[in-house]
Amino acid sequence: MSRVYNFSAGPAVLPEDVLKEAATEMLDYKGTGESVMEMSHRSKEYDAIIKEAEADFRELLGLPDNYKVLFLQGGASTQFAMIPMNFMKNKKAAYIVTGQWAKKAYKEAALFGEAVSVASSEDKTFSYIPDCSDLDIPEDADYVYICENNTIYGTKFKELPNTKGHELISDVSSCFLSEPMDVEKYAMFYGGAQKNIGPAGVTICAIREDMIPEEALPGVPTMLQYKTHADADSLYNTPPCYNIYMCGKVFKWIKNMGGLEAMKAHNEKKAAILYDFLDASKLFKGTVVPEARSLMNVPFVTGDDELNAKFIAEAKDAGFINLKGHRSVGGMRASIYNAMPVEGVQKLVDFMDAFEKANS
Amino acid sequence: MSRVYNFSAGPAVLPEDVLKEAATEMLDYKGTGESVMEMSHRSKEYDAIIKEAEADFRELLGLPDNYKVLFLQGGASTQFAMIPMNFMKNKKAAYIVTGQWAKKAYKEAALFGEAVSVASSEDKTFSYIPDCSDLDIPEDADYVYICENNTIYGTKFKELPNTKGHELISDVSSCFLSEPMDVEKYAMFYGGAQKNIGPAGVTICAIREDMIPEEALPGVPTMLQYKTHADADSLYNTPPCYNIYMCGKVFKWIKNMGGLEAMKAHNEKKAAILYDFLDASKLFKGTVVPEARSLMNVPFVTGDDELNAKFIAEAKDAGFINLKGHRSVGGMRASIYNAMPVEGVQKLVDFMDAFEKANS
Repeated sequence: MSRVYNFSAGPAVLPEDVLKEAATEMLDYKGTGESVMEMSHRSKEYDAIIKEAEADFRELLGLPDNYKVLFLQGGASTQFAMIPMNFMKNKKAAYIVTGQWAKKAYKEAALFGEAVSVASSEDKTFSYIPDCSDLDIPEDADYVYICENNTIYGTKFKELPNTKGHELISDVSSCFLSEPMDVEKYAMFYGGAQKNIGPAGVTICAIREDMIPEEALPGVPTMLQYKTHADADSLYNTPPCYNIYMCGKVFKWIKNMGGLEAMKAHNEKKAAILYDFLDASKLFKGTVVPEARSLMNVPFVTGDDELNAKFIAEAKDAGFINLKGHRSVGGMRASIYNAMPVEGVQKLVDFMDAFEKANS
Repeated sequence: MSRVYNFSAGPAVLPEDVLKEAATEMLDYKGTGESVMEMSHRSKEYDAIIKEAEADFRELLGLPDNYKVLFLQGGASTQFAMIPMNFMKNKKAAYIVTGQWAKKAYKEAALFGEAVSVASSEDKTFSYIPDCSDLDIPEDADYVYICENNTIYGTKFKELPNTKGHELISDVSSCFLSEPMDVEKYAMFYGGAQKNIGPAGVTICAIREDMIPEEALPGVPTMLQYKTHADADSLYNTPPCYNIYMCGKVFKWIKNMGGLEAMKAHNEKKAAILYDFLDASKLFKGTVVPEARSLMNVPFVTGDDELNAKFIAEAKDAGFINLKGHRSVGGMRASIYNAMPVEGVQKLVDFMDAFEKANS
């Protein structure tokens, strides 16, 4: 068996040790005689799995007890609706539009109240993060919303916006657990698992308890009320059991790697290898302003569509897959999430260097 | 490794061959060098997986082209809201209440319009299916809703209700692919995967195309509109990729077993072994009227709570797990879905027989 280097933006590479362990446990989880896929979600065996996953997640982030952790379904796209439906008390919220996902969240919120775009980087194809130190945020906005790392465009908020006392809600899907977070600055942060955390099909939300409505909200589907899931510790109905189990294994892997500080060092090292190469290259160049560069998603171009296509095809043949940029921007993108080894990035850069020499 | 006989009501036993194949492919799916968990949902490899799963599902059921197949998230509980939100044009629908899940669907529908209970078996703890040959269905009801197999109570509709020309919508979660269906009698049928089809985290909906609203519905979250998913062939956002892949494997397994007619014979054989024993036993007895007995879920009691508990504990020690009845009814329940081998049911009956002799 020969594993490739997978630069997919999501679903994405998972730690090989995690996959090996899952394969070993597939028919018999720790002597239970069952696969985790076959376990009743009300069994004590499964209860231990979901509780331990939550405990490890909390430990990694240093998440205080007054935050609820919810394992939900439906992806970030479902959160785009749940957030305004649950939190827009004044029917108004501020959105910072730094990419396609932030924009989708903003548009969805407009179905349920007044969504105000208080900053945007759309004028330059979302290639930077706007100055958010002194935004004109409506007094009665219920929250300020950001997408913290923009998967498609390769930008990241290096510092959180000045919300001027408003609650902050952040989509951290593509930077989840990639470095430490100052969690108490957020009223809520959440992410789809399929980038840094596990297989697609589970969304993890951390919500400060006082944010969650005390009563069920009229007209809101039961499954779209945070209260439903918070009251039942994510077991109101059958959760995506196996997906959560896989996330739990990834949390253990991160702990074994040394936690989020170690993960940050690991990710900075990889990103430096790639950005340093891009900055020095005469053929390839990054598309993002240096001060907003993501550690996770690195878009780059040659400036020539044919050459881009040639590079992507040759890279694939050499075992570097999913390097094609998102259809909305073109070019290339290397997503180098937690599970991508340093070796993978180094080999990619060696390959890029050889390609540059051969094509100049 | 010693596998147990797992009588869980869901998540439930899966075919051992399917699990073995999944374990083998965990680190490298067919020479791609990736796990299916790591694959971009926009890749041609994953596209082949989801398309083939859909094609096999259609073939098994003989589903005509004018039905859409959707792979969604959020379980049946999310469908309880989506169905009225999408289909209640006249803001009225008829519900047949034959158990806890039908009742939950009925209550959820009442959040979005007038839900009318046109029949119920709650008077006798849902131990029978009401006569549905001549119901008083409101003329302007948009649909008639049933839960076709009642997991908790062990009942099944042996014939579909006379809807008097109204559209029929059915939750088939716990009898999905257990026998052939007359699919064109339904405007929609759907089920959570975690009983007969695969791991928890995916819900499969078959919907006649003309039912799906042509325009986006105002005030309905984008993710709760069937149109969103139908237009995008279940790839509007990242689907639960691995869960769908596992369902696809189960579809292949059913095809290899001979399809739904063979599955029906297999399930009838198992059910006969268990019901025949219950009918002859002096200690154990079934709780459902014979004419409504489910082939999938078989509740039974001894009439003595202590003896029930003793049986459940001794059965567990002997490798027969998850035999405890649902908390709302007590006693025992053996769920004998497609993947439960005949041998498992025969051995359970042998064990019950020995228990009866030892405790009489």
